[in-house]
Amino acid sequence: MAHPVSPLAPKTFPELPAIAGVRFATAEAGIKYKNRTDVLLMAFDPGTVVAGVFTRSKCPSAAVDWCRAVLPTGTARGLLVNSGNANAFTGSKGRDSVEKTARYAAEALGCQPNEIYLASTGVIGEPLDATKFEGVLGETASRMADGPFIDAARAIMTTDTYPKLAGATVEIDGTLITINGIAKGSGMIAPDMATMLSFVVSDMPISAAALQALLSREVRTSFNAITVDSDTSTSDTLIAFATGKAGIAPIESDADPRADIFAAALGDVLFDLAMLVTRDGEGATKFVAVHVEGATDDQSAQRIALSIANSPLVKTAIAGEDANWGRVVMAVGKAGEPADRDRLAIRFGDLLVAKDGERAAVYDEAATSVYMKGQDLEITVELGLGTGKFTAYTCDLTHGYIDINGNYRS
Amino acid sequence: MAHPVSPLAPKTFPELPAIAGVRFATAEAGIKYKNRTDVLLMAFDPGTVVAGVFTRSKCPSAAVDWCRAVLPTGTARGLLVNSGNANAFTGSKGRDSVEKTARYAAEALGCQPNEIYLASTGVIGEPLDATKFEGVLGETASRMADGPFIDAARAIMTTDTYPKLAGATVEIDGTLITINGIAKGSGMIAPDMATMLSFVVSDMPISAAALQALLSREVRTSFNAITVDSDTSTSDTLIAFATGKAGIAPIESDADPRADIFAAALGDVLFDLAMLVTRDGEGATKFVAVHVEGATDDQSAQRIALSIANSPLVKTAIAGEDANWGRVVMAVGKAGEPADRDRLAIRFGDLLVAKDGERAAVYDEAATSVYMKGQDLEITVELGLGTGKFTAYTCDLTHGYIDINGNYRS
Repeated sequence: MAHPVSPLAPKTFPELPAIAGVRFATAEAGIKYKNRTDVLLMAFDPGTVVAGVFTRSKCPSAAVDWCRAVLPTGTARGLLVNSGNANAFTGSKGRDSVEKTARYAAEALGCQPNEIYLASTGVIGEPLDATKFEGVLGETASRMADGPFIDAARAIMTTDTYPKLAGATVEIDGTLITINGIAKGSGMIAPDMATMLSFVVSDMPISAAALQALLSREVRTSFNAITVDSDTSTSDTLIAFATGKAGIAPIESDADPRADIFAAALGDVLFDLAMLVTRDGEGATKFVAVHVEGATDDQSAQRIALSIANSPLVKTAIAGEDANWGRVVMAVGKAGEPADRDRLAIRFGDLLVAKDGERAAVYDEAATSVYMKGQDLEITVELGLGTGKFTAYTCDLTHGYIDINGNYRS
Repeated sequence: MAHPVSPLAPKTFPELPAIAGVRFATAEAGIKYKNRTDVLLMAFDPGTVVAGVFTRSKCPSAAVDWCRAVLPTGTARGLLVNSGNANAFTGSKGRDSVEKTARYAAEALGCQPNEIYLASTGVIGEPLDATKFEGVLGETASRMADGPFIDAARAIMTTDTYPKLAGATVEIDGTLITINGIAKGSGMIAPDMATMLSFVVSDMPISAAALQALLSREVRTSFNAITVDSDTSTSDTLIAFATGKAGIAPIESDADPRADIFAAALGDVLFDLAMLVTRDGEGATKFVAVHVEGATDDQSAQRIALSIANSPLVKTAIAGEDANWGRVVMAVGKAGEPADRDRLAIRFGDLLVAKDGERAAVYDEAATSVYMKGQDLEITVELGLGTGKFTAYTCDLTHGYIDINGNYRS
């Protein structure tokens, strides 16, 4: 079932450069979809380190369990991702499937199974037949190349209406470091973790521990700042791989002054990917940044921003191009965080709509209505309590979301 | 803007009996709606006690602030409710409006302003002009009678598609005690508190403290067990009034053995009202009871049940008549409560769909599909961890919800 491409889709896709030590190919394993790629096999040169962040679901998928179990080694030689079946809630069959799949991938890449990272996305609860991989991985491995990354992004799509990829380069010690990322996800998107799947590769020399520290730090204002529908996937996975092929001294800890430079570039890639996921929110017609300022602290601001971004009433109002700031107040109030109704100020774009707990004297219904017709909107809530702030990103809630999710399995 | 009556609406409405010490009338004050009643004025005889439960929103409406302030007196002589304007987030104007309104009502009923309880429902953020009441309350007071209660229920409706009323009688000390209730609410419905507005009246002799204890207890499995869209109103209000006119000795505390008998009847009325609110959920086409059993404790069961009942993906699947139990697993996982994926069992009605962490061997897709076409559905999740249980009630998420809420202010 194909859905129309999101009106918020990017007009162009970047051509990401090759990264030394990274090769990949995609294949059609026929797991669920017909006539499209559904498998991504990626190989890393020896010495590649890995870091990951996974769903906080108490019912994680078999692949998430696998990745968590092998992650402590800190090293990776391969990544295998499939779309069409999440291999989640598949009991002992799921565990068997994951073990077999890792073995097939390891055979294809010439490494150990515990050097393989796995991710699956698609329908939950259907057993994933690992033999589907057995037939294709050897041939797929024989076709691996250093690009194009857009093919990798396409192979991991489910209800996504466009492939998601982003990259950054940064000069460290006079050497250009490259970071490429791909992501998929457009529903079941909520904080902790927000994307269903995202993979980042870099040639940066860095220890696994430092990479993990930076990844965990940068996820807060990127993938953990977005929400489509408040639902949290059983499969949410973000993995970063660093081949270390760039010829500079490695970052051994996040205390290294170069760590912040690398982290900023990594954060840019994660942010760009997270925005691409939000803009492909199921049924989305508008993209919304929700800024909360003046909270008692950043964490409180984050909770309030996400309460607004998750509110069905706020999101349907936005879909209806209705500057219903009363619902924003409602969402502030339900967050349970410190808020003083009579100090609240709310802006839609630059237009002040509420101040000191009531409609602003300068409120201009006509101007606000015109603003709401835009495709990229900003809502700012000033709490007037402290210096805490956070920005959450979401999309509107439309008939398209109902269409897509009321009929997903058929 | 009128919406079609919910397909889940009751076929008939009860004719509630008069309650000694309670009189009321409704009026058309023209606050927002045309050609319909929008004001309910209710008078209680001297000696009437009161108890209340209110929204947990940090940005409550002016009327909620008022009720909280006067509640400690424990006595009530009047109730004034309006629909069309919530008088919420209206700053100092809202406080002025509430004070004036209470004064007008007190004048009309011949009591003190702090014996008046107020509730307002409708648009948030628009100042409520108290002079609208000034003109009509005297005349309204002159028409007060002991029924019919359905008129009271109609006057407080907003996007409700049918009036909500329920009653119970119970024999205590050989005397028939009567409890009548009305409610309104169909969107912005979530636990803590779930209804926007509900008012219960009884002739039971009871202390204010005992009434408060019983009301707070019984709300847990009624109004705090339902959800339409996870959004919490700034105005949620449940108030119980007891005139004490039944000629028996009063219940002075909830330790009185008769308290449980009265509480059971009170609980029945609250439950019936809560179900009526859920069945009028905006856009609802299906009513869903979500039973969670085998949780570590009842509170954990409640959180998991509400996580399922609030999940947009579960609710859209139900709208699409899709037995997508994988999304139920997702919602269990995101609740953050103890759960063991590999012990989970899930039933749709009596049909076992998942057991021991995977699709049940007896799973019958055809039978489950037939079941999902029903209007009243039950989802049961057995966690297998302990004896905690809870049932939450919700409705599906449909195009109707988007239609109603994307266009509310116009």
